[in-house]
Amino acid sequence: MPPIITLTTDFGLQDPFVGIMKGVILSICPSACLVDLTHDVEPQDILGAALALEAALPFFPDGTVHLAVVDPGVGSARRPLAVRMRGHYLVGPDNGVLTPALLGSRRTAVALTAPEYRLPQVSRTFHGRDVFAPAAAYLAAGIPLERLGPTVADPVLRPIAGSRLEGETLVGEVLAVDRFGNLLTSIEATALAGFAGGGPVAVEVAGQPVAGLVDAYADGGDARPAAIVGSTGRVEIFVRCGSARQALGVGRGAPVRIRKRG
Amino acid sequence: MPPIITLTTDFGLQDPFVGIMKGVILSICPSACLVDLTHDVEPQDILGAALALEAALPFFPDGTVHLAVVDPGVGSARRPLAVRMRGHYLVGPDNGVLTPALLGSRRTAVALTAPEYRLPQVSRTFHGRDVFAPAAAYLAAGIPLERLGPTVADPVLRPIAGSRLEGETLVGEVLAVDRFGNLLTSIEATALAGFAGGGPVAVEVAGQPVAGLVDAYADGGDARPAAIVGSTGRVEIFVRCGSARQALGVGRGAPVRIRKRG
Amino acid sequence: MPPIITLTTDFGLQDPFVGIMKGVILSICPSACLVDLTHDVEPQDILGAALALEAALPFFPDGTVHLAVVDPGVGSARRPLAVRMRGHYLVGPDNGVLTPALLGSRRTAVALTAPEYRLPQVSRTFHGRDVFAPAAAYLAAGIPLERLGPTVADPVLRPIAGSRLEGETLVGEVLAVDRFGNLLTSIEATALAGFAGGGPVAVEVAGQPVAGLVDAYADGGDARPAAIVGSTGRVEIFVRCGSARQALGVGRGAPVRIRKRG
Repeated sequence: MPPIITLTTDFGLQDPFVGIMKGVILSICPSACLVDLTHDVEPQDILGAALALEAALPFFPDGTVHLAVVDPGVGSARRPLAVRMRGHYLVGPDNGVLTPALLGSRRTAVALTAPEYRLPQVSRTFHGRDVFAPAAAYLAAGIPLERLGPTVADPVLRPIAGSRLEGETLVGEVLAVDRFGNLLTSIEATALAGFAGGGPVAVEVAGQPVAGLVDAYADGGDARPAAIVGSTGRVEIFVRCGSARQALGVGRGAPVRIRKRG
Repeated sequence: MPPIITLTTDFGLQDPFVGIMKGVILSICPSACLVDLTHDVEPQDILGAALALEAALPFFPDGTVHLAVVDPGVGSARRPLAVRMRGHYLVGPDNGVLTPALLGSRRTAVALTAPEYRLPQVSRTFHGRDVFAPAAAYLAAGIPLERLGPTVADPVLRPIAGSRLEGETLVGEVLAVDRFGNLLTSIEATALAGFAGGGPVAVEVAGQPVAGLVDAYADGGDARPAAIVGSTGRVEIFVRCGSARQALGVGRGAPVRIRKRG
Repeated sequence: MPPIITLTTDFGLQDPFVGIMKGVILSICPSACLVDLTHDVEPQDILGAALALEAALPFFPDGTVHLAVVDPGVGSARRPLAVRMRGHYLVGPDNGVLTPALLGSRRTAVALTAPEYRLPQVSRTFHGRDVFAPAAAYLAAGIPLERLGPTVADPVLRPIAGSRLEGETLVGEVLAVDRFGNLLTSIEATALAGFAGGGPVAVEVAGQPVAGLVDAYADGGDARPAAIVGSTGRVEIFVRCGSARQALGVGRGAPVRIRKRG
């Protein structure tokens, strides 16, 4: 079973940066199976990359190495990290992008300082190529995490927003907008179930009422936004065959409020 | 020879949806070789995905599994399908996207109902991950098609437009516009040969005359649109080092008419 | 160790052209490991593709086959080429796109004329599929270069601009703009070191002064453009957490001038 390495960056696909990282990886670990999660994270959007990792982690087999390079601090004192969390490995800068793997209880983080597991020459501007890709490749090739550098006790955490109760209202926010214009909210299906027990609710996004919760996209009215439990276990807002972003005129950070009805 | 799975979706590359489907596939069939056909089908453009499949099918080896997820009806009653057509397999929703494989005479279609070949939990919004990716992976791993569910006798067909004779004129339409602004028409090279026998023709797009047929892009005038037999065996309209879409101001559905000259 | 084939085109990812080339490759060489360098080269931008190849070549292992299809002359008399340069192979049209491999002293170039190493039917518009992909696959599968066709003594060269001394000034130009708005200049770090010996310099882009040279992106002021030695060994101009292209209002071809200070 060839080792899997996923790649998540804000490099885009216009430049050869991602391909060059793959060349570095395959030079070190020729049997690696490379999977792109996304390279269209907005430039320097650490939360966007963390959300992609969080959504993907449960669907990859044990032993997968996840490489995430959104790195506005490249060349500065920010540490390069590798993390083992249960059977998974994550590699990236110590700026919070690896938070989905750092919140677990049984995890180990190390700083990528061992020169023998970097490229011989490390540039000032492309640690994805010179530091992170080699680390991911050596982990995939079976090098133990602890050989890459000393343990880090206090990695940077940027927890992804959740939901909270304000009086009789479950409150969250829009975390991301996907390609279809669907709004991913921070309200977890489990929090909603605890709050409303499956009973009817009223949902508002930035003060605008939306329908729902519905059971399928096909159950949404044609032009009216509606709420649904999405594929990552969070409430999403959508418009059937349309864009909730356009219909509601909102983006990341817009408040989402859910009240019990009837 | 590792099994090949191609992927065609309207998910775009901004979100991690495609990468997540690949994680599901590799968890089931670790040796799979994954090839993206395109993920930039316009949202919910079933014809666009069917055209991509039609163009690609002849160039993949026997045994390839083609996964196509353009699925506006996800979560509704539309059936999930797998199809075997000669040596190829296709997996996707029963909304016409698999038409290029369903028109052949020797094909079998089944509904993807067997729970053991889905993920344990099936969401309401992401059957690409929960239903279609697992089915493709099990087929690639050698599970017989018939084990995935019962035979479907009446799959949805959305045949791709062709050409027709109207008096002395061969008539078709623009099916798609590619990255270069070339217009892919519905007029087949074989139909044109039967009509004009290789003799000179006059070509009009939306009432505007274009040059041709020419033998190579390099034979087109620098600003004037021209017709050529393209790589998929259909007549295309192009502008040398320019965009036929811009020059003619037309898109999908524009009428194309060919008459004999002289 | 599976053979690696990289792909660089101006085909974009909207259409299935790249996926179709991969189907052709895997039909011939099923064990190939396929790596995209970029498919978002501007249509017909030969220099853009050559820059991507130049940046990537040093980071792939010996024996890699690099396939580059930016081919405005498809179907005309331009020759299709394969080149061996030290341990690497490059395949593409004879229009200068392969220049990074052709400048070396120990290289062999052949014209891809042998019909047994093309697809049986060669279209007029898609030699990427019919000529170049098969050649790359056969090379990856171990077919000797010389079997693909006769030696070419005079391949087309389009050398990438460098820097030159004008009096007391080192002069170059902007070669490319990356996703972050960073400007890649033609001034090599080695030329700069020979010119200034590590002493302080003043840098101008299109007559506008920029800061630097700095040691890391994080050392740039927040809004002011600065110069740095980038990851490909050339001087780059950047804005910390911003876009140098926007800040300076310049693109490819803009003059860059460096003088000694103090």
